[in-house]
Parts: sequence; structure tokens; C-alpha cells
Amino acid sequence: MQDLVRPTTIIRSAKLLKYLDLDITIASETFQTTGSFKFRAAYNLASQVKEEMLITASSGNFGQALAFACQLLGKSCIVVMPENSVQVKIDAVRNFGAKVELVDTKKISRTERLNQLAKENPSAFVASAYDHPLIIEGNATLGYELSQITPAPDIVVAPIGGGGLISGIIKGFRQNSNKMPQIIGAEPLLGNDAAKSLTQGNIVSNDEEPQTIADGARTLSIGKYNWEYIKNSVSKIIEVPEEKILKALWLLFSLANLKCEPTGALSLAAILTTPDIFTHKKTVAVVSGGNVDTLAYCKLLEQAMT
Amino acid sequence: MQDLVRPTTIIRSAKLLKYLDLDITIASETFQTTGSFKFRAAYNLASQVKEEMLITASSGNFGQALAFACQLLGKSCIVVMPENSVQVKIDAVRNFGAKVELVDTKKISRTERLNQLAKENPSAFVASAYDHPLIIEGNATLGYELSQITPAPDIVVAPIGGGGLISGIIKGFRQNSNKMPQIIGAEPLLGNDAAKSLTQGNIVSNDEEPQTIADGARTLSIGKYNWEYIKNSVSKIIEVPEEKILKALWLLFSLANLKCEPTGALSLAAILTTPDIFTHKKTVAVVSGGNVDTLAYCKLLEQAMT
Repeated sequence: MQDLVRPTTIIRSAKLLKYLDLDITIASETFQTTGSFKFRAAYNLASQVKEEMLITASSGNFGQALAFACQLLGKSCIVVMPENSVQVKIDAVRNFGAKVELVDTKKISRTERLNQLAKENPSAFVASAYDHPLIIEGNATLGYELSQITPAPDIVVAPIGGGGLISGIIKGFRQNSNKMPQIIGAEPLLGNDAAKSLTQGNIVSNDEEPQTIADGARTLSIGKYNWEYIKNSVSKIIEVPEEKILKALWLLFSLANLKCEPTGALSLAAILTTPDIFTHKKTVAVVSGGNVDTLAYCKLLEQAMT
Repeated sequence: MQDLVRPTTIIRSAKLLKYLDLDITIASETFQTTGSFKFRAAYNLASQVKEEMLITASSGNFGQALAFACQLLGKSCIVVMPENSVQVKIDAVRNFGAKVELVDTKKISRTERLNQLAKENPSAFVASAYDHPLIIEGNATLGYELSQITPAPDIVVAPIGGGGLISGIIKGFRQNSNKMPQIIGAEPLLGNDAAKSLTQGNIVSNDEEPQTIADGARTLSIGKYNWEYIKNSVSKIIEVPEEKILKALWLLFSLANLKCEPTGALSLAAILTTPDIFTHKKTVAVVSGGNVDTLAYCKLLEQAMT
């Protein structure tokens, strides 16, 4: 009954399978410690670096994950968040023992404030939310778990934001399985930098933060460590329209009893976008996390039904 | 990747534990086949009886569970439901291959129609949703799983409607563990027949179907097979006010990312009602199921926040 990294939750929903007429196993990280896969990475990073203080910029899941990892390890943590963040997210980070540094992003960017804090605290480790070997190594624990599923999946589909999750999954399979499944990324069409990168053969950036409802995928580009994994082992990245994300969110809730955040619904949304790819295949769909404001979630469900 | 009885989902939510300041492990049956623990009982029953046709009266989880169990076993199934049942529930039973027999409950009771159908189909088995040794035996598979949790729980708290779930849990512990935890029932105050039964030493019935939001606990009384387990091994039944059910539903959703039906929230609601009992104890709270209409669920969440 400890509170460290928890095994992923394997869900087979008879109603969802009948609806889709596809063989889909869900691997849900919504019940991971702090509610998303990010804890795997955050805990691995915070426990491996020698520094006693960690600083990061995150308004979302990585902030909560790093805060709690540091609390468990007795390290101190500063999380830079925009002044206009939802109060419940600020509270969550504070409740996990971190110091929250609110910035007015009209006056100073989060990266600038992060750099200032790094100068003020020269002994601190500045943590990327997705692009570092220790991040990938932490996420590889999920890849390991997926590699142990029997019968082995033909396809694993996972959301892509900064690319840390899918890179960890690839690493986990490489280390623990003789059979690498087809790895497919699920990315919002509104912020399709990873899909473009895979097509062009080099990292492409979005011009600005894409305004997708999948807020965990509002990254400007994938990370350079992640690119090494993605370019070699991701066979395809499906570009998902916003309405499919909503539809997937609704289906997971209504048919599979699963509450997930919009970013978490990307994998099923990708399956809905191009179902033919998944016909007669054993597919594992990774749901990356479940943290979403309760009232905002209900509004999304209502929107999905109209 | 099969679709039979699935292991319960063990959830430890750091946010919920911090909020409650109690050591609570959730055992959730919301991802069980057909979305509630009822499938354990239904599948065991349908696979053990020799009859090729099964008939039951259920507007809820048992109907879906029995329908799917029969479909998997190649048996036929009739489910008697009130004419005014929610369409989504009728569809769910039909999608699992059962014949739905709708009754106008103003003209004829479900029990009467059940008896008529039994006469029309003399070779059919008429299945109780909660009171039969094979039902208890099926639910004992959950008791077995809970008995394997380490460290062993001091307390297990579970919802009581007809009493089939808690009886199965008791049976599972008796068969598989040397250490019987304290078994506590969680029952709506509006339909507190089980609590009264335990106090008086005999089965007490509600005068009419109690109008609690925990619709899985709208039973008139506990079953006679179940009473044998409950009277000997349930130490206490906590009578839960409706507002605590709502609060528990909201907490599970907002802090633990868990969607459950109101009946499923009874265990946490009981903990909120008398938290002192659970101080310094390792408690397992059983969440019995997750099937609830999506819009109705959102209304409950909104109600909980006002």
C-alpha cells in the first residue's frame, strides 16, 4: 500500500468493443500517482539527479508529478505557473509541497522566469517536462508493463505532445521484448508538428501554442532526445480532429466508465479517425492521464452529445 | 485479452488520501465486465446451472451482467424491465443479446410477470439478482482478491443492497485468509433495512422501495442466504445520508479520477459519515460499479458542488 509508481490499469470494456468492433485494450494512467503517467518520469528524474532542489515550468500534470516526487524524496521544488492558471491546479501543486511561482505571462515568459530562478538557485536542477534521458527512462516503465501483456499487442497507440511518453514506451519495448509492436502516435491536427516532423525527417515546430482541447499536447515541438526514438520507431502519427477527441472522451466515459482528460482521449480519437488501420489487430490504446476540472469536464461531455 | 471476469482495480489516490487523512485503498469494480461486480455472480450462476434459459427481473446491473454471461455461454436470457426504464439501459441489455420484456408496472408487478414467464418457460432458471449460493460464490472471487492485498486490510467496507456483494466478500475471506478483517456495510439511511436487521437480529423489510439516489440499494430487504453471512460476520452497518453519497461521488471523481455510480460511492460515503472508525486503520473501500447515465451523472456532480 505504498504511494510510488503504480501499475497501469488494463481495461477491456465489452460495450466499447462491441461499439467499435475492434480489439482494443486500454492501458490507463488516470489512476497513476498524481493522476497521469508524468509521475513515472518525475519520480525517476527527481530520485536520480543529485540536486536537492528541482525547478520546472508546468501548468499541468508534470508540475503536480514533480512536486509530489520531490515531497516523497524530501527534496524541494519550485513550479513556475501562469498567474491565470486554474486555482485547483495551483492548489494541487501546493498540496504536494511545492512552492508555486506565479508569473504574469504578459510581462515575462515562463521560460524567462525559469532562467531567472535558475540563476537565483545555482544548485538547483532545471527539469524539462518531457525531454531528458531520465524522463524517457521513467516512462519506459510503462513500456515494460505493456510488453508484458499477453497475447502481445500488434499495435500500441499513444498520445504525442513533447514525445516523452511514446519514447519511453519504445524504450521499454526495446529493452524487454523481442517483438516490437507497431507504434502509432496520436496528435491533435491543430498542433501537428510531430506528424510533420516524421514526414520531413527533422523536427518541425508549431508557430505558436496550438489551441487544441488536448492541453497536454500544446507543445511547440517534440524534444530532441525524443526525436531519436520517434524517427526510428514510430511508424505513423495520426492527426486527430478536435471533434474526434470529444467523441472519444464521451465514449470512454459512457461505455467504459473511464474519466480521462482530453489529451488522454487522443489514442481512442486516433482509432476513430482511421479505424481501418486497426481492423483485425490487437491494439493497446494508452490513456495518458485523467486530471481535468470537474465542471469543465461536464461541459465537454455535453458538447460531445450535441 | 479475454472478456470474462476481470480482476478488481486497486486505486490509491494521493490527493484523496491527503484530503481524508486516512489510509484508504479503493477496490473498484467499475471496470469489471459489464461495468459492475454483478458479472462475477451472473457468470458463475449462468455457467453452473444446467438450464439453457435464464430469466431475471432487473432494471440495472444484474440484467446487463446476466445477459452478457448468457451470451458468452450460448444460453438464452430474458430480462424483465419496467416500461419506463432509461433507454440506454434497455439498449445495453439488448446489445448483450438478451430478450427484454417490458412491463407496465402500474398494471402488473415485475415479480408477477416474472412468475408468468417462468410458467410459460418451465425449463428456464429464474435467477435472483442477489440471493442464491451461486451468486455469493461468484462474488466470493472478489473476496479472494481482497484477501490477497498486502499488507492485509484491517477493515473492508462495502455497499449493502440485497447483501450479495458483502456476503461474497465474507465467503472469499473465510476461504482464503486466516485473518478476517472487520467487515462494515454501507447502506443508504433512506433504506436502512439491513442496519435494522443487524440490530434486531432478524431480517427487517422496508415498507416500500426506498427512493435513495443509490439505486442499486433500493431493495426491500436483504436475502435470506445473505443474512446468514451478514448476521455472523458484519460488525457494523453505517447508515449513510444522501448528501454524503453525493459528496463521495464528487470526491472520487475530482480527486481520484474515478467515475462511479451513486451505489458505488456508498463505501466512501460511509467513511465520510463516521470517519473516526477508520482512523489509523488500513481500510479497503469497495466501489461496486460505474454504470450511470452520462447526463444524469453530470447533474449529480453539479448538485454536489452547490
